[in-house]
Amino acid sequence: MSLTPADAAFVETLAAGLPADTLRPAEPRYLEEPRGRWTGAETWVALPRSTEEVARIVHACAKARVGLVPFGGGTGLVGGQIAPAPARPLLLSLERMTAIREMHPMENAAIVEAGAILADVQQAAAEVDRLFPLSLASEGSARIGGLLATNAGGVNTLRYGNARALVLGLEVVLPDGQVWHGLKRLRKDNTGYDLRHLMIGAEGTLGVITAASLALHPRPATTGTALLQVAGPDAALALLAEARAQLGDTVSAFELMHRTGFDFLAEVLPELRQPWDAPPEWSVLIELGLGHGADPQAALETLFATAHAAGLVSDGLIAQSQAQAQDFWSLREHLPIANRGIGAVSSHDISVPLGAVSEFITRADAALAEMGRWRINCFGHLGDGNLHYNVFPIPGESRADHADTRDAIKRCVHDIVHALGGSVSAEHGVGRLKVEDLERYGDPAKLAAMRAIKAALDPRGIMNPGAVLATG
Amino acid sequence: MSLTPADAAFVETLAAGLPADTLRPAEPRYLEEPRGRWTGAETWVALPRSTEEVARIVHACAKARVGLVPFGGGTGLVGGQIAPAPARPLLLSLERMTAIREMHPMENAAIVEAGAILADVQQAAAEVDRLFPLSLASEGSARIGGLLATNAGGVNTLRYGNARALVLGLEVVLPDGQVWHGLKRLRKDNTGYDLRHLMIGAEGTLGVITAASLALHPRPATTGTALLQVAGPDAALALLAEARAQLGDTVSAFELMHRTGFDFLAEVLPELRQPWDAPPEWSVLIELGLGHGADPQAALETLFATAHAAGLVSDGLIAQSQAQAQDFWSLREHLPIANRGIGAVSSHDISVPLGAVSEFITRADAALAEMGRWRINCFGHLGDGNLHYNVFPIPGESRADHADTRDAIKRCVHDIVHALGGSVSAEHGVGRLKVEDLERYGDPAKLAAMRAIKAALDPRGIMNPGAVLATG
Repeated sequence: MSLTPADAAFVETLAAGLPADTLRPAEPRYLEEPRGRWTGAETWVALPRSTEEVARIVHACAKARVGLVPFGGGTGLVGGQIAPAPARPLLLSLERMTAIREMHPMENAAIVEAGAILADVQQAAAEVDRLFPLSLASEGSARIGGLLATNAGGVNTLRYGNARALVLGLEVVLPDGQVWHGLKRLRKDNTGYDLRHLMIGAEGTLGVITAASLALHPRPATTGTALLQVAGPDAALALLAEARAQLGDTVSAFELMHRTGFDFLAEVLPELRQPWDAPPEWSVLIELGLGHGADPQAALETLFATAHAAGLVSDGLIAQSQAQAQDFWSLREHLPIANRGIGAVSSHDISVPLGAVSEFITRADAALAEMGRWRINCFGHLGDGNLHYNVFPIPGESRADHADTRDAIKRCVHDIVHALGGSVSAEHGVGRLKVEDLERYGDPAKLAAMRAIKAALDPRGIMNPGAVLATG
Repeated sequence: MSLTPADAAFVETLAAGLPADTLRPAEPRYLEEPRGRWTGAETWVALPRSTEEVARIVHACAKARVGLVPFGGGTGLVGGQIAPAPARPLLLSLERMTAIREMHPMENAAIVEAGAILADVQQAAAEVDRLFPLSLASEGSARIGGLLATNAGGVNTLRYGNARALVLGLEVVLPDGQVWHGLKRLRKDNTGYDLRHLMIGAEGTLGVITAASLALHPRPATTGTALLQVAGPDAALALLAEARAQLGDTVSAFELMHRTGFDFLAEVLPELRQPWDAPPEWSVLIELGLGHGADPQAALETLFATAHAAGLVSDGLIAQSQAQAQDFWSLREHLPIANRGIGAVSSHDISVPLGAVSEFITRADAALAEMGRWRINCFGHLGDGNLHYNVFPIPGESRADHADTRDAIKRCVHDIVHALGGSVSAEHGVGRLKVEDLERYGDPAKLAAMRAIKAALDPRGIMNPGAVLATG
């Protein structure tokens, strides 16, 4: 049962039932992705303005058995937004559906359309004195629909959870074109299977998210930021435990950074202000969000003193101003750009149980050392056990020199992650990049259940074909 | 495709492959439920000791097309644990699988079997200085498997979320007898569809949960409890907003109580110490969990002073000791028993958006007044918009006098909930009680998707037949 390409004849018929400018040939920006690993096939892009138009498009694709790739901000790192060549599916961009439909500050809820950009949703929440805590490097261009479809993580997961923890309800066009109107604003609703969590993280393979009811949070009255030198990942985890003992749930971010990251930043972005004369091997960026009357600098100084006495931290900088805090965060947020400037041989978005973080790094470093000489930039959301363990060539070599080794490196790192009970896709998703990994490492009963669900909800296989699940 | 009864021949064959005492005729306690609305058909109960034995039982049932009703603590309020007469399914009790398999205090995680009693899990967490925050009236007998299958709520949802928010991973026997080994201890894992959240809340209709990886939390260093008189539900919600502004996420419970509840407690349980000379029309039980060095009584006094100045509270009691705090909680926790002593004509576990709570109560009270004279005990988890709106006969009449009116009352209340964008099952689930309500009020696209998923994962329809989804 192969798919029909979205050819001129199909597009002409579809266009007849939609406003004049809804369909057009896809410009290059729809066919590219941040890491440059895939290029989409030439195709058409549909740009609907309403859920009803999305439903009409999906229904037409289902009828004609034409594949459909939902497209948000295009920031995904696993190729889920790229339309593969053989099937030539239609692209469906939600970029015209950007409305903040409703704001309910008293209920800590907002209803937004899938095309809304994350930074705009954060801003709309701030305007009613609320926090929408999802935050990640691409927040200026990533859109809500894609963020939910991939269950995005980011820097505030430690306190507020993944994207899925911030969703009260969804509006979704199902693969047959029916609309599930699930935009409830309820904290408790046990009326049947939780379709919401099934759609979140399904990466557009089970339907198109058109709008979401999001959970907002109170805005912390005051925040504190520090950059602390730690002896290593174990010391960092002990520091986190101490921070939580002293400060409870107010620790909102806890990011591990390796010296290699500071080196890359100096090399690729020399204009960025560097905090250290000589960067330490390991450091931690910590952020607190506290209530009225609290003194975050004093809290961080107390934490530092305790941790210093316990031998966990050796030096540190506590931001003395909002500007300095932003400088610290700027370093963390520019790491992906610095990495791209150097050019990774292989990047890994992994998680392991917290108790296995240190062992993972030791084992992976040792195994890779046997395969060659590398620069390894290991950084990430330590409090979630989520590391970006990225492998780069040494100076004088390029990623192209190691194209033959890439798969072996990936396999080596992922084998260690799997052996430690971890995940080979912590926050970026499966997309097209990790379909094979899912087959290799996934639980067979879970994979069988996933295939049964996919076949049940999308029997014609039109939704984001080739993403997440291997097509038969 | 009707089911085969679990008759002596089937049980004999099944027993041959299991330890001698695994199967026995079900004693009356397996055929009863707390509200006395259903009685199960005479049947057999299987009491496996391991996941492997559960898998063998499920596989045998699938092969013979015998229905299977998973049984936890038997505390469910919607009949989901009751085996209906016509199909005579086998009962599957998890009561022998009570192990706390692993404790990971550093990771704030625990792996427990489905038969573990909630209070025992709470206790095991406390022994390693952690909190497992799920808490509800039946915690001394409810078991983890049932609590997750129904996505239980309770009094700490406001701060810690529903049961599903406390689950990192699951081990589940799927309807064909395959075991999904999903007991990960990860905070981030985006490897495919989230089966975990699909199984949680499916009430045993998609598989049998045999173990869970649970999220623990730091234990609050100190707690504070107060019982405050409020002018009404709107004032209570304004008080909650003020409490959160002053105290952030440390508000762990916020329970609304109506005077009728105190009256019922005095009538049914006269030995309980009553806090008021004359109970106020509306009061709120509030609990804080604070960090080291905090003074919860001072925090509650400040809250009271601010709220009193704003006209939100008129009087109040701040617990001066742990014993007094327990007295306050004892009142709240005995409400279900008091209600049973009076005998409800109709009970409703509903939720509405916070902004609609007051309107719901006004409209429901007015509509019911047109149908007769009642005593209404409206109480519950106000911070979650979750009310137990229970309708009782006036003194001198009994529930039996109104048997004919019950359905009309339920319909009237649920119609109002639905019109306000609420849920007719907030925390108790659908079970057998609300199958018709789900058909009436459920979104058609969602229902179609649920049916497709059920047919895909349980094509023989053996798992908890008749619960959640109407059987055709």
